[in-house]
Amino acid sequence: MTDFTRTKVLFHLPEGVIYLDGNSLGPLPLAARERVARLLREEWGEMLIRGWNDAGWMGEPCRLGERIGRLVGAPAGTVVMGDTLSIKVYQALAAALELRPERRVILSDHGNFPSDLYMADGLVRSLGRGHEVRLVAPEEVADAIDRSVAVVMLTEVDYRTGRLHDMGRVTEAAHDAGALTVWDLAHSAGALPIDLAAAGADFAVGCTYKFLNAGPGAPAFIYVSPRHIDHVRPVLSGWLGHEAPFAFDRDYRSGPGIERMRVGTPPIIALAALDAALDVWDGVAIDDVRARSVELGELFIAEVEKGCPDLALASPRAAGERGSQVCFRFEHAWPAMQALIDRGVIGDFRAPDVMRFGIAPLYLDAADMVRAAEVLAGIVAGRQWEQPRYQERRAVT
Amino acid sequence: MTDFTRTKVLFHLPEGVIYLDGNSLGPLPLAARERVARLLREEWGEMLIRGWNDAGWMGEPCRLGERIGRLVGAPAGTVVMGDTLSIKVYQALAAALELRPERRVILSDHGNFPSDLYMADGLVRSLGRGHEVRLVAPEEVADAIDRSVAVVMLTEVDYRTGRLHDMGRVTEAAHDAGALTVWDLAHSAGALPIDLAAAGADFAVGCTYKFLNAGPGAPAFIYVSPRHIDHVRPVLSGWLGHEAPFAFDRDYRSGPGIERMRVGTPPIIALAALDAALDVWDGVAIDDVRARSVELGELFIAEVEKGCPDLALASPRAAGERGSQVCFRFEHAWPAMQALIDRGVIGDFRAPDVMRFGIAPLYLDAADMVRAAEVLAGIVAGRQWEQPRYQERRAVT
Repeated sequence: MTDFTRTKVLFHLPEGVIYLDGNSLGPLPLAARERVARLLREEWGEMLIRGWNDAGWMGEPCRLGERIGRLVGAPAGTVVMGDTLSIKVYQALAAALELRPERRVILSDHGNFPSDLYMADGLVRSLGRGHEVRLVAPEEVADAIDRSVAVVMLTEVDYRTGRLHDMGRVTEAAHDAGALTVWDLAHSAGALPIDLAAAGADFAVGCTYKFLNAGPGAPAFIYVSPRHIDHVRPVLSGWLGHEAPFAFDRDYRSGPGIERMRVGTPPIIALAALDAALDVWDGVAIDDVRARSVELGELFIAEVEKGCPDLALASPRAAGERGSQVCFRFEHAWPAMQALIDRGVIGDFRAPDVMRFGIAPLYLDAADMVRAAEVLAGIVAGRQWEQPRYQERRAVT
Repeated sequence: MTDFTRTKVLFHLPEGVIYLDGNSLGPLPLAARERVARLLREEWGEMLIRGWNDAGWMGEPCRLGERIGRLVGAPAGTVVMGDTLSIKVYQALAAALELRPERRVILSDHGNFPSDLYMADGLVRSLGRGHEVRLVAPEEVADAIDRSVAVVMLTEVDYRTGRLHDMGRVTEAAHDAGALTVWDLAHSAGALPIDLAAAGADFAVGCTYKFLNAGPGAPAFIYVSPRHIDHVRPVLSGWLGHEAPFAFDRDYRSGPGIERMRVGTPPIIALAALDAALDVWDGVAIDDVRARSVELGELFIAEVEKGCPDLALASPRAAGERGSQVCFRFEHAWPAMQALIDRGVIGDFRAPDVMRFGIAPLYLDAADMVRAAEVLAGIVAGRQWEQPRYQERRAVT
């Protein structure tokens, strides 16, 4: 059984803050400070260029990919780190479309994260071969997969509502129709048990700054099924995906296995922070995280519904259909969230009217959930969101 | 007049090392340690998600782009940071090709960095419209630009030989033929005076881990001429290039000006290191850097030619035709470089037989150049490269 009192102390949590926005940006793992400082001092500072070999920098994208792979059910040699999630979506989608050259539909849902859809749009326009990004309601995806569909591209957990797709079922439906899948695990990795191999997923991508706590703008990851990797011809064919980058050959030859999904020079400082963030997971069972997340989520829903009758649950009520977040709709969601943050309970707002609360058992406990609901109830009951300073709109994240 | 004794002390240079590989990875600016530590402690740690607004993280790619812009002659609002150089090459090239839809040739030279050519190959294949990457000798580029050429894509300073293109002349020749230019400034930014605006460059890209000293895998930059930016439709259309990323609209609408070249969530930790690295340039005149680089280069060539008659200068002899590096061909370049590094003089090897020495006046002086040439002469004269331990090949960087 995972000891969550042990994991909570591994993070820096500011005095007086209950942090319910770790699904947007996870908090600082204390060890990241020393790990990054050491990288600068002992590796970059002392080794200089030799760090690429002597400190193993060149191998970091694959070594850390392995560590992430263990959290998402990916076999060895199938995950590599680099770039941003949007770039990884582009890579995966481009590769998948090439594997289904006779088909023209990318199927997704209205709940997918906009950047994934924007990247698909850009790719479709670039290809200029009449591909279509087709969107349906989340619950209609499986039935909408027909033999025109090349790729089903979905975010497993809806970023607004927390609605969870059944990865195994949708992937099976895709395969039955001869289509491939690209799964975005942004809100899944580190939050839920995922078994990419068992689900038969073809491609998966994800970021590491949410439930994996690797810091603002931390690198993304990409998974390619062993069934496909040797057939993938990278469109973003950068030198570090080359079979022999330092031979400086004129012709691109893709590297072995997942290495070919590398593009440019890896972001070593950011990867050091990720390395420290992943240390937190040593001795943590993801099934325990999920069980605790469900417990905390149920508690939070009960407390909020008791204290705030004006708020309507926007997430699925059944815990098994939700990711690791709970959302409520409220007409005054924006100013209410500002008032809440002002009182040290940090959640997030998603347009037009969603208050979103991420539940990360590594550093949240039952007392936090009860207290957060209590503060929220005070704001709603006291109409504190009416104060002018909470009405002002700012750039949001 | 820039005081280079003042800049040298701003870097950590390991005891006993003369560092002539700053054109591969610049050394650690001392201030980067505290700047990165502060980001982790005070911003990520204390502000958490609020850092995007309260610490200005969301604006960092443009703010730091402005700082780089001042070093490369780019007007305000034309440079933005993000991704890797390979990705930025792809973006620039895709945009340029769209601006010349009726043309099919990407003209480059044999000296271009392989990753730039690989990215071009990948784009061409993805477009599937019969584009061609045509390579000529560096000195033949200007004459090879005809009306079939859509884009002339060049690295200003050849990564192996240091040969310098005349950006103004080549750009003019390109424009005379109705073609556009994409300039890779990897070995130029921070090494040479560059005036993108005066040269009329259409697009430019560069990295920040060489002469700008921002650390291993530091973010890249992209410049788009004000003539073109409002006509560019990004192919890598990520959410942070959207006009209103947090409206989460279904449809992509490119953001204002250079912001549209942003893709995913910016790498905040790496940008903090870059910020500190750019502080070194306060009070430094790039013309002084160039003058000192020429002085140090001439001195180094003279000393090496005196002490090592077996080595042949591989860089242009005329200082005005060289970037900020000096290269020699030597049959035993690989083991000789290993022996040299072993004695604390760190240069680089480029296949098949090039010994490459980067000259960065911010932290190198005349005594360093004389001493480095002396150590090299000892290795060559004493045939120290014959020792078995220097013969072994490793992965190189």
